[in-house]
Amino acid sequence: MSTSDLEQLRTQLDDVNLQLLELMNNRAEIVQQIGQIKFKQGMKVFDPIREREMLNHLVEHNHGPFENKTVEHLFKEVFKACLELIEDDHRKALLV
Amino acid sequence: MSTSDLEQLRTQLDDVNLQLLELMNNRAEIVQQIGQIKFKQGMKVFDPIREREMLNHLVEHNHGPFENKTVEHLFKEVFKACLELIEDDHRKALLV
Repeated sequence: MSTSDLEQLRTQLDDVNLQLLELMNNRAEIVQQIGQIKFKQGMKVFDPIREREMLNHLVEHNHGPFENKTVEHLFKEVFKACLELIEDDHRKALLV
Repeated sequence: MSTSDLEQLRTQLDDVNLQLLELMNNRAEIVQQIGQIKFKQGMKVFDPIREREMLNHLVEHNHGPFENKTVEHLFKEVFKACLELIEDDHRKALLV
């Protein structure tokens, strides 16, 4: 392994970062659409049972190298960010 | 929008979750390889300048709906998890 290997890996990392960004925003868009339906139907946007199911599903499909607790931690952060986004959308809609 | 739309969106969300999981683990594998090179060359694994550059690059490419500060927060969590992983790898290697 040499410095050029390091450069090559860094290029791969930059590429994966952008793919992750796109997928995170893609996820946020889907959650925004779910939020719109839920608000219209007077449903609560935060559903802890559904969130637990999603985490279990992810852990079942986790082949590492991240440990399951890390996967749970990272996805909880993503879930929280999505939830804050749709709560913010809802506040803005109420102000219109 | 109906309940079946909600079901459809949830299926999409489950699919995106699994893609995110795969990419996160893919990223972790690349960082593990970078960590091995750095440890062999006696380099520090944490590089705050490189981390700042990656965050700036991500923010430049962010078209939302996540705000830039959310993108930074989520990626800092991913970076931290990757760093902990390679520090753990190194500790295990030292114990062999």
